[in-house]
Amino acid sequence: MKQAIGVDIGGTKIHFALVDEQGAIVRRLIVPTDAQAGAERVMAKVLAGIEEILTAAGGPDAVEGIGIGSAGQIDYRTGAVEFAGEQLPGWTGMPIREIVEKRFGKPACVDNDVNVIAVAEKMFGAGREYDSFVCLALGTGVGGAIVEAGRLVRGTYGGAGELGHVTVDFNGPRCPSCGNNGCIELYASGTGIARLGKEHLESMTAGTEGRPAWAPDSREVVQAWVEGDAAAAKVMDTVFRALGAAVAGFIHTLNPQAVIIGGGVSGTGPVFFEALEKEVKARTSPGMRKVCRLLPAYVGADAGVIGAAAQVWLYGAKGTE
Amino acid sequence: MKQAIGVDIGGTKIHFALVDEQGAIVRRLIVPTDAQAGAERVMAKVLAGIEEILTAAGGPDAVEGIGIGSAGQIDYRTGAVEFAGEQLPGWTGMPIREIVEKRFGKPACVDNDVNVIAVAEKMFGAGREYDSFVCLALGTGVGGAIVEAGRLVRGTYGGAGELGHVTVDFNGPRCPSCGNNGCIELYASGTGIARLGKEHLESMTAGTEGRPAWAPDSREVVQAWVEGDAAAAKVMDTVFRALGAAVAGFIHTLNPQAVIIGGGVSGTGPVFFEALEKEVKARTSPGMRKVCRLLPAYVGADAGVIGAAAQVWLYGAKGTE
Repeated sequence: MKQAIGVDIGGTKIHFALVDEQGAIVRRLIVPTDAQAGAERVMAKVLAGIEEILTAAGGPDAVEGIGIGSAGQIDYRTGAVEFAGEQLPGWTGMPIREIVEKRFGKPACVDNDVNVIAVAEKMFGAGREYDSFVCLALGTGVGGAIVEAGRLVRGTYGGAGELGHVTVDFNGPRCPSCGNNGCIELYASGTGIARLGKEHLESMTAGTEGRPAWAPDSREVVQAWVEGDAAAAKVMDTVFRALGAAVAGFIHTLNPQAVIIGGGVSGTGPVFFEALEKEVKARTSPGMRKVCRLLPAYVGADAGVIGAAAQVWLYGAKGTE
Repeated sequence: MKQAIGVDIGGTKIHFALVDEQGAIVRRLIVPTDAQAGAERVMAKVLAGIEEILTAAGGPDAVEGIGIGSAGQIDYRTGAVEFAGEQLPGWTGMPIREIVEKRFGKPACVDNDVNVIAVAEKMFGAGREYDSFVCLALGTGVGGAIVEAGRLVRGTYGGAGELGHVTVDFNGPRCPSCGNNGCIELYASGTGIARLGKEHLESMTAGTEGRPAWAPDSREVVQAWVEGDAAAAKVMDTVFRALGAAVAGFIHTLNPQAVIIGGGVSGTGPVFFEALEKEVKARTSPGMRKVCRLLPAYVGADAGVIGAAAQVWLYGAKGTE
């Protein structure tokens, strides 16, 4: 069976895998990124990990190519890092594809970490039957990717799909990362839910002496909501109204067959999808709503490394174009 | 020179033109739609108008095809009307392409009125140099169209680009047309600006006896703003903050090379683009902002009929796929 190497480069760990054409992981390796040691050191770790997987697989002839997903903004055309923040210091400008192709003599594809998740969902997961869908990754932030007519929507340089920075309240709080007000990331990310939880707790105890010093994290808010806590339900009502409005906007913009949601609060499963479905239904034109399904991400925690490898088959030797 | 027939079907008038390959109108005909007389009568007028232009052009051999843009939701794959509201009673379900092709024996393309404007801008206008842009049509409502990788973004059935129904305030007023709250159409359309003007006038005179019975229309608000009126400036500040947030969201979603804006308040020219530019700049990530230009629509009042005809060359005999 045909095989490819996938590499998922995050701020904390680098995940390598030998993946077969059906999306199964044949062999894997996980190493700490140790990002603070600098970009050269991270790149050396990437090369060493690929080498190790390649040797175990039986050498270069055993794989068709190498696919890489990386945190940060990636120019998929060159396979270089357009911009990376504090998570990967010095990573900006790293010509990942060039270095990997030179070293191993195999075709390489490089893209950002959410686009490769969309590739995994398209080839092996919830997006398998669809040519037109939106992926939302709810985490510390909110990431996105868009597939239209079977292809990733790229825009000018591959920056398309920054769905966390779509406004749901133009009078809302300022977003520290993009400068806009009331981005959906400020409501539906882990950080956003924690902020709303803290604000609600403060408003409940305003005017009383000895305000609570404790602020809940997003897991605590979500857990309390699932258990029926009234204050948490109030917070989550805001989360679902904001996220429902954003998803309705994506549907009106793209008329997709599905919106595929993974990570964070979506991990609570049916209770999450039921609450979101209600808001989306109320906020979307009937025609577009009828043809669009809200679906949980299918591939799970390995989606990054599987999707990274799957680029090799989706794009072939032509690269990510 | 090669020629095609364009037809632009609106609620008030039907515009026919013989258009050459450079986007110039060689001959034109405008008739009242007389929509209340019913869909059969409208279709008969469409056929009669095409016949008249075709005869004047020298018969079927003189044109390469017939392109049609219509108000309402159009299924571009079949060339039939998916949904039309009160503007064109009974128009829902009309198989425009089938009827036109049968009658004249020439290939026909049918799409909605904003998509054909995007085609005109792509082939002859502000989008000529771009493969990735967003069109916004500010009118009684707000319409949109998206071009990505040189093609119109369609979604599941051609509904993509309903940009007027993207939320900018999830706690905002309910949208009568889609059910969502705080759609950008409620702020940046003619209807929206008039509503904001009326609300502001009422809030200024609240508590006083004899509130003004007069409510400004959007032209009056915009005119007063251009002339430096302070109350109108307050209203337009809301319009620009809302529209700036929406445009920033489109840029984050699609990473386009340009956002092309026509109609309504954008007709005030540089003063409009300057005010919007300021808001968009403050609300967009620097990388994506840098590569994206805000541009006035170029083709003007004839964009509908020119773009309708231009579909024939953009899509060729394959139809709109």
